[in-house]
Amino acid sequence: MLMKIGFVNLEELKNSIKDETILISIMFANNEIGTIQPIKEIARIAKKANVLFHTDAVQAVGNVKIDVNDLGVDLLSMSSHKFYGPKGVGALYVRSGVDFVKIQDGGHQERNKRSGTENVAGIVGLGKAIELANENLENYNAKLLKLRNYFIKEITSKYQNVKVNGDLKQRLPGNINISFPGIDGEELLLKLDSQGICASAGSACSSGSLEPSHVLMAIGLDSDYARRNTSYYFG
Amino acid sequence: MLMKIGFVNLEELKNSIKDETILISIMFANNEIGTIQPIKEIARIAKKANVLFHTDAVQAVGNVKIDVNDLGVDLLSMSSHKFYGPKGVGALYVRSGVDFVKIQDGGHQERNKRSGTENVAGIVGLGKAIELANENLENYNAKLLKLRNYFIKEITSKYQNVKVNGDLKQRLPGNINISFPGIDGEELLLKLDSQGICASAGSACSSGSLEPSHVLMAIGLDSDYARRNTSYYFG
Repeated sequence: MLMKIGFVNLEELKNSIKDETILISIMFANNEIGTIQPIKEIARIAKKANVLFHTDAVQAVGNVKIDVNDLGVDLLSMSSHKFYGPKGVGALYVRSGVDFVKIQDGGHQERNKRSGTENVAGIVGLGKAIELANENLENYNAKLLKLRNYFIKEITSKYQNVKVNGDLKQRLPGNINISFPGIDGEELLLKLDSQGICASAGSACSSGSLEPSHVLMAIGLDSDYARRNTSYYFG
Repeated sequence: MLMKIGFVNLEELKNSIKDETILISIMFANNEIGTIQPIKEIARIAKKANVLFHTDAVQAVGNVKIDVNDLGVDLLSMSSHKFYGPKGVGALYVRSGVDFVKIQDGGHQERNKRSGTENVAGIVGLGKAIELANENLENYNAKLLKLRNYFIKEITSKYQNVKVNGDLKQRLPGNINISFPGIDGEELLLKLDSQGICASAGSACSSGSLEPSHVLMAIGLDSDYARRNTSYYFG
């Protein structure tokens, strides 16, 4: 369903909806290449087909302006530490009227939707963090974009054979993902680290893994390229 | 399986184990009446039958000395806020070699046993809280027991028809559960509150519910009694 650049193919999505389809779940923005999906269009397709639409917006919240009503999503999940809130707490937006089955039984907290004593400090921290993130969003993004574009311009002019993966426009402002042909990602990381530069050769979830990135494979890079990529996150 | 006083009937437990039984899960101590189960004996029965034994020790950890090796349990769960740690974080003890199916998929954190970015501050807080709780356990319990027994003596000598529910010996030191015949629990709470005395008419999970306590019903109280109970937690 992914095109070369990492976008959802909307025609293919439409055609893949069957009578028994009840939910579409698509990442808002990718964690490796930063590609931002056409969420509003997907929501429109889902609504027309009478299918619920959930988006995992963990990478997007705090980086992109989000209005659930304007977008038309039914469910949206976020994670606090992605916008400088405390670790280990997240939130699920549920449009009024959307019913769901709880995954944890026991107590009947939060109107029987989620069991267990709430992480109060974490929840308050998440609320404050999103408030601060949204206050500064535009200035912060403008600054990030400038830095990122400068970085891309410099690196692609100095090293002609590097390859920036993913789309350059519909992309998280603080993300770059670059393949360096002929250089191993882990090797490069060590050298960058010794110069005080932070980067990663894969997502945090797969740190320590030597497998090529499944995201880069999905957008059509061969495994050799996929292994030779490094991501930079600004922020 | 519960006897009048709230203990597991060990003979009945033994007889209820079938060929297909893979797990016994029994609360270490009850959250309403404070009854402490014979965990070591249950663990012995489970081991003999080659069945895993999990105990929900949420009410017990921090109140009772617990040595998982001495008890022989395979799995033990606890919740930080019950021993004055932060809310919203818990721990599951898993005996080395015991395999389990994760309930949440996604990232591969904690050696693929639980997905999601860890609540680091909460985990550190839980660790420190249990350390402090265990340091002071004996003195603290001695003090609690003295207070509780004084309270029971006074109230039962002044009001002959009150009924203390649950066992008086194998019981959490900070728990009392009393039924007051002829007085509604909620009504009593309001009056106690106006005098600055904290009590509850049921577990936190069922606060706001007017149903009689399922625990008190299970130990044989009639619904009228069960509705007229108030718990006191010292600590």
